[in-house]
Amino acid sequence: MEEAKQILARSFTPKPVGKEHLSLSEAQNRILATDVISPLNVPPFDRSTVDGYTLKAADTFGADEDKPVSLKLCGQVNVGETPKAKVHKGTAVQIVTGAPIPEGADSVVMMEYIIQEDDRIMVHSSVSKGENVMRAGSDIRKGETILRKGMVLSSHEIGVLAAVGLDRVEVFKRPRVAIISTGAEVVEPGKPLPLGKIFDINANTLSAAVAECGGEPFNLGIVQDQTDHMEKALKKALSMADVVITSGGVSVGPTDIIPKVLNKLGKPGVIVYGMAVRPGKPTTMAVIDGKPVFSLPGHPTSALLIFHLLVRPVLAEMAGKGVEQPVTVRAVTSERFFPARGRRTFVTVTLKRDRAGKILASPVSIGLSGAITTLAKADGFVEIPENQQFVDAGETVTVHLFKPDKYYSLMKE
Amino acid sequence: MEEAKQILARSFTPKPVGKEHLSLSEAQNRILATDVISPLNVPPFDRSTVDGYTLKAADTFGADEDKPVSLKLCGQVNVGETPKAKVHKGTAVQIVTGAPIPEGADSVVMMEYIIQEDDRIMVHSSVSKGENVMRAGSDIRKGETILRKGMVLSSHEIGVLAAVGLDRVEVFKRPRVAIISTGAEVVEPGKPLPLGKIFDINANTLSAAVAECGGEPFNLGIVQDQTDHMEKALKKALSMADVVITSGGVSVGPTDIIPKVLNKLGKPGVIVYGMAVRPGKPTTMAVIDGKPVFSLPGHPTSALLIFHLLVRPVLAEMAGKGVEQPVTVRAVTSERFFPARGRRTFVTVTLKRDRAGKILASPVSIGLSGAITTLAKADGFVEIPENQQFVDAGETVTVHLFKPDKYYSLMKE
Repeated sequence: MEEAKQILARSFTPKPVGKEHLSLSEAQNRILATDVISPLNVPPFDRSTVDGYTLKAADTFGADEDKPVSLKLCGQVNVGETPKAKVHKGTAVQIVTGAPIPEGADSVVMMEYIIQEDDRIMVHSSVSKGENVMRAGSDIRKGETILRKGMVLSSHEIGVLAAVGLDRVEVFKRPRVAIISTGAEVVEPGKPLPLGKIFDINANTLSAAVAECGGEPFNLGIVQDQTDHMEKALKKALSMADVVITSGGVSVGPTDIIPKVLNKLGKPGVIVYGMAVRPGKPTTMAVIDGKPVFSLPGHPTSALLIFHLLVRPVLAEMAGKGVEQPVTVRAVTSERFFPARGRRTFVTVTLKRDRAGKILASPVSIGLSGAITTLAKADGFVEIPENQQFVDAGETVTVHLFKPDKYYSLMKE
Repeated sequence: MEEAKQILARSFTPKPVGKEHLSLSEAQNRILATDVISPLNVPPFDRSTVDGYTLKAADTFGADEDKPVSLKLCGQVNVGETPKAKVHKGTAVQIVTGAPIPEGADSVVMMEYIIQEDDRIMVHSSVSKGENVMRAGSDIRKGETILRKGMVLSSHEIGVLAAVGLDRVEVFKRPRVAIISTGAEVVEPGKPLPLGKIFDINANTLSAAVAECGGEPFNLGIVQDQTDHMEKALKKALSMADVVITSGGVSVGPTDIIPKVLNKLGKPGVIVYGMAVRPGKPTTMAVIDGKPVFSLPGHPTSALLIFHLLVRPVLAEMAGKGVEQPVTVRAVTSERFFPARGRRTFVTVTLKRDRAGKILASPVSIGLSGAITTLAKADGFVEIPENQQFVDAGETVTVHLFKPDKYYSLMKE
């Protein structure tokens, strides 16, 4: 597995496939492609933080409950308005919360300290310069970095963009992933099922998994295990997508045509042909003129497992997420796990809390018999090294989770 | 808050707004609207689990390494084929993994126990009936319930649907939510900003929050605080959507026109007018001819907070998710929290681990001054009851998380 990853790294360096400008609603859940610098101050002007009267603080010097200061009232300013009045020495302007401070004023006295009489006000409290005023740029200063490249745009980040007046934002393009299923026995869901055939699961699960990790899937359907069909399909896939995934059809035998076709299509061609892992032994990797091709096993759970191990990290980097940390949880094995001799083994497990509150990991069989049951029940997998004989019942192991939200539900069970 | 929720519950019962049939790729992340019953057996036929020879187990009785049994070979069957040959007493058919068991055969002997000589095979091992055969329906039986109403369709569930041949699935429709911003001072992001105005944040954050909890947002933009404009906008919103959200513009004062307009538009009209909470005091709720209208505060973080408390649970039920449990974490307060006197107080907090590994909750100010900073920093909120004087520094509190994935990152810090 490590060797395979290193070989891939030597032939292909995953990097973002491009950038695009999207509206804020389109950009939801996408990855920011640049740091965002605020083009303006927030707030853009000095604002009153209270309802009251705005004036020069110096004019209120010494004012208190018993000894008010009298000022001339010369106008008012509401929220959303450009102030018409100016404040000169000895004058004040009525103001509401959020309205802009007019020229000449430097502070606001709250409503309750003022008695208004016609065009004059009695100020029963002194204020200092800047009191009850929120200065322009005090929340965000023009030129400040407000969001960082690589952040996921959720409702909160979208709010920050709106606040500085941006209605479009530069995000990373999603890597395009072409998905091909193969195998003489598979039929597309929704079509009639002849005797001897089974429905294809992989095209749909892999498409959904690609979308889940930030790629844009293109399901090219089922392609027959024949050289001419496969060559045509792989050419199309390579021309339209940044990454190609096939599943099924790769086994060491006479019908093993995908690697042969891949080697014809470009350089360096097949770089990994089979891996010492269980499941996933037939996994093949190629790079064709700068684009990676992953040929995964036909068994749905095996395909999804190898996808998580090999494809997902590559897609995450191509989507601009950088190096993703796997989501893991510690659990106790419910029984003894037997790995394959001499091969790195991945045991798919289902997780639950026992009565004592421990998180238990129970293996779900991944044989031919468990295609669906395994897929539905598998919460994650445990990795067992090549040289380990077994993992004993009751041992604590690290489980890599397929769905990160499982973590929360486990902790709260 | 509780009273407001009860009043709403008496006037409006949230329930799913409808169902629709979608393809598997369209249905990703949607909520299943019915239990799914398998229309077929999986596998649909008896399958070989090994490469070998299929035969009648009775014919191998007593066979072992030294004493092979000789059978006539009469054909072969590959994956995806309808078997042409039948197996009679004294005959066998060559078979590969996954291929259908032909009529008459009941078991498979693995390749390595067989020596083939022209049209005869020597069987060096006995098998029992059913050995190396996966029976039709052993993974899923026709008529079995494979997925339950209310489940979210991730890659795994989509795989289960594909496995039983379904290419379309019935999911709940997303509730349509019309969103209106109001206030004399707000301008749409992307437009020029006149002096005295600020950019509207709420239309975008609330739209994104609606999408995050399974609704379909329709951003109707900014509507001026004038009766005729507001009436037209609310009528449009009510005609096109299942739920209406407004923000800003509701304050007890002369410009407080939304409640008046709502009362004109239908029955029962406004049911909650202001709440004893901080923030969120001006929150107003109405029901107009069976559709709820939520009028949230203008302050972006307050609006999002009240959305989480009041709107989100309603939308979750309308989206078919049922009653959602809030995602919470226990944390220790970094300083003393002062609630508003006599009002239920929600303190927005930012969370981080301190050096000792404790999760610390620090308040982020929610005054006029913190519009953006608060929004970007707020991980969740702490609820303080009406009658509590304060929460002391170092007390353990329950924090409601805005983003559930924060939970994992906190635990792994």
